[in-house]
Amino acid sequence: MTPSERIGAFSAAFNPEVLTPALRQACARSLLDTYAVGVAGKNEPASSRAMAYLATLGTGDEASLWGCPGRATAEAAAFYNGVAAHVLDYDDVTSPLRGHPSVVLWPALIALAEAESAGMGRLQSAYAVGFEVMCKLAKAVAVDAYAKGWHVTASIGIIGTVAACSHLLRLDAEKTAHAVGMAVAQAAGTRANFGSDAKSFQAGHANAAAIRAARLAQAGFTSSPDAMDAQQGYAALYGQGQDLSAALATLGQTPLELISSGLEVKKYPLCYATHRVLDGLLDLRAEHGIALADVERVEIETSPGALVPLIHHRPATGLQGKFSLEYAVAAALLDGHVGLAAFTDESVQRPAIQAFLPFVQGRSTQGDSILPRWALVRLYTRDGQCIERKVDALRGSAVLPLTDDELMAKATDCYGWVGLQADAGAQLAIASDPKARIEDFLSIARWKNRIEI
Amino acid sequence: MTPSERIGAFSAAFNPEVLTPALRQACARSLLDTYAVGVAGKNEPASSRAMAYLATLGTGDEASLWGCPGRATAEAAAFYNGVAAHVLDYDDVTSPLRGHPSVVLWPALIALAEAESAGMGRLQSAYAVGFEVMCKLAKAVAVDAYAKGWHVTASIGIIGTVAACSHLLRLDAEKTAHAVGMAVAQAAGTRANFGSDAKSFQAGHANAAAIRAARLAQAGFTSSPDAMDAQQGYAALYGQGQDLSAALATLGQTPLELISSGLEVKKYPLCYATHRVLDGLLDLRAEHGIALADVERVEIETSPGALVPLIHHRPATGLQGKFSLEYAVAAALLDGHVGLAAFTDESVQRPAIQAFLPFVQGRSTQGDSILPRWALVRLYTRDGQCIERKVDALRGSAVLPLTDDELMAKATDCYGWVGLQADAGAQLAIASDPKARIEDFLSIARWKNRIEI
Repeated sequence: MTPSERIGAFSAAFNPEVLTPALRQACARSLLDTYAVGVAGKNEPASSRAMAYLATLGTGDEASLWGCPGRATAEAAAFYNGVAAHVLDYDDVTSPLRGHPSVVLWPALIALAEAESAGMGRLQSAYAVGFEVMCKLAKAVAVDAYAKGWHVTASIGIIGTVAACSHLLRLDAEKTAHAVGMAVAQAAGTRANFGSDAKSFQAGHANAAAIRAARLAQAGFTSSPDAMDAQQGYAALYGQGQDLSAALATLGQTPLELISSGLEVKKYPLCYATHRVLDGLLDLRAEHGIALADVERVEIETSPGALVPLIHHRPATGLQGKFSLEYAVAAALLDGHVGLAAFTDESVQRPAIQAFLPFVQGRSTQGDSILPRWALVRLYTRDGQCIERKVDALRGSAVLPLTDDELMAKATDCYGWVGLQADAGAQLAIASDPKARIEDFLSIARWKNRIEI
Repeated sequence: MTPSERIGAFSAAFNPEVLTPALRQACARSLLDTYAVGVAGKNEPASSRAMAYLATLGTGDEASLWGCPGRATAEAAAFYNGVAAHVLDYDDVTSPLRGHPSVVLWPALIALAEAESAGMGRLQSAYAVGFEVMCKLAKAVAVDAYAKGWHVTASIGIIGTVAACSHLLRLDAEKTAHAVGMAVAQAAGTRANFGSDAKSFQAGHANAAAIRAARLAQAGFTSSPDAMDAQQGYAALYGQGQDLSAALATLGQTPLELISSGLEVKKYPLCYATHRVLDGLLDLRAEHGIALADVERVEIETSPGALVPLIHHRPATGLQGKFSLEYAVAAALLDGHVGLAAFTDESVQRPAIQAFLPFVQGRSTQGDSILPRWALVRLYTRDGQCIERKVDALRGSAVLPLTDDELMAKATDCYGWVGLQADAGAQLAIASDPKARIEDFLSIARWKNRIEI
């Protein structure tokens, strides 16, 4: 079997009945997190621009635009929702992919499930299939692909997503293999586009392109069974010609990747490089009952290379604040939490914050390897104490997952950010019930006041 | 300026007034040829499957589906028409690209012109802009990209097409540069998909993706100005990291690429490797007034490697006949011309043809270089004569273009193949008139009897 055929055989034969309660819960948590982050992104410039473009795509009412009253075709909705769910860079990550799996799975799957009236059980198994394919493929090619310059969330993600969409559409193994080849025909996305709207476009594109590929295959469209591994195929163009058959031979082995690799959920809406520091700092703040006014200065020490992305030492805007160690520390000490509200320009420019920025010092230790990663937070208080905390495992990571309450609090913060209210707990319960309908999940998030555009 | 910015500046500043009558005529001929070939492809399986998929794209009536009564959004129409225009592999080629320029330009441009009510003059300048960008870029990267395995028609073509679409939409230089980065975000297509529906999909995708990129940029969407040349950008991922600035510095120098590189128009609807042989054979047949019954055997001698793609020596189907030297020779001798009707299974299976196949012998000479290309045709007649003809320049190539009459005859054959009739001469006149409207060009092709599908 070629790699395309392996993926086809796995996706077509995957039995939703094998999903354990733990797997269903993992799906449910990821669904809630991805949707809430997507709703929170709806007012960002990239989302508004994508929405303006949607007007050129004609009319369709298969699927919802998250957090918005309009509807569109499944493909257009998957595109828009993918953009909105990635623009804040607040969506989940999985380690093998070196990228964001759920943002290229859920927008496509939810849109297709709405179009096809597929139930939550089918959505869960489709998500598990896509995640499995994405991680197995990523283990073979992600490191090389990322190094070449591919935005692997999109360029690898699309292959997992097309498997997931094919499973949801109940395509047979042969049609799924053709769909994989059609996904290869659209795989793209470069890291050179990071820092522009095009980064979130690349996530939206992977969603829409996967639906396109699956629906074309459903209509009988063919591709080469060798599209993944021919001399001119995916492994050569997007990787380094790796042997994909070996990597894909373990598809479906238990525990599934959704359990064994798992998900890293972002607890804070800013650069991941600040997250260990924030975990330690917020713990110290809570345990010792201190706030910004009590602190004289803060020293941060980290593992090698951990501070590289944090390039803004005196941030003035919300976007700069997302890449500032100093701002992260000051805001956490002042507010006691770090949510979306911290990343407006006004929040960043608060005088108490700006005055404290010079009293945060960060330093990475020397070393050859960026692993293992850790951060040491040392607080010097005005009354002469020094308290410290070292953080290894990130809260929200696969080994130290957020509690359901923490996850629901993040979702509620996301909804509130754009004027929605929703019972995140009820959503989580619906999302974990294989007999539920996605429409019920979506309809829980409602506007506090009136419908806005 | 980055390469994206160079393309943006060129496209935005290009003045349609600089188009000479010769350039307008080149546009007009290419438009007629591409459209006719697209109409001829409408009943192929890939086209029918693409049409079935269009039903999932909602409704829209911006643009025509060539040769079909329906309409769709510009993006959907560009996709479908791109598939239909490439599926027969009968569309034009240009040497620097190592691929098919017009099939990734005209479907997008015509659809956008219909949507925007742009006149023929704007279409002509947009086509010239796209062709120019495509060829300059191809001169830098096409050989390496093709060798890696990219389907350059799509992966390079998309960059020219996005420049053309941006020019048609009158985007400024900055927005056009963003559109280029959005095209990079979707550039794809592998040679591994050749021989399947996915090959024509890749052409259709490039058209739709270019419109998507241009319209997103029009809506304010941004990309990185470095998407073409950053360390992780287009030149690195799709080429070998070539210096694109140097290649693009000559954009717009006269003569434009549309004149200096020009187009190779396929006169016969089968593998290009047979075309020199057919030119010589049909000339001999006409000049000597002989037909199949008069011929005892045929010997073909060619330059090194010229027969490699012709793998079917005893073809039974139309598709096999497209890659058969023996069939090409026999059909040309019997029919006196080689049109679309020669590639049905029934045509290939005609007893007189099948009986003659063993009497065609082909041989390539030994040599290291495939250039210069030539073919020698030697006919041995039943009355003991031997007549021969050596062919160097291909009829239809840039150096030996088809006459307008030959081009119109090809178009008429294309239309007739699917039951249409059209005045190709009137179309050519409209296409060369900058004051004409594309709707008038399109409306000339009408059904002989009733509207089908």
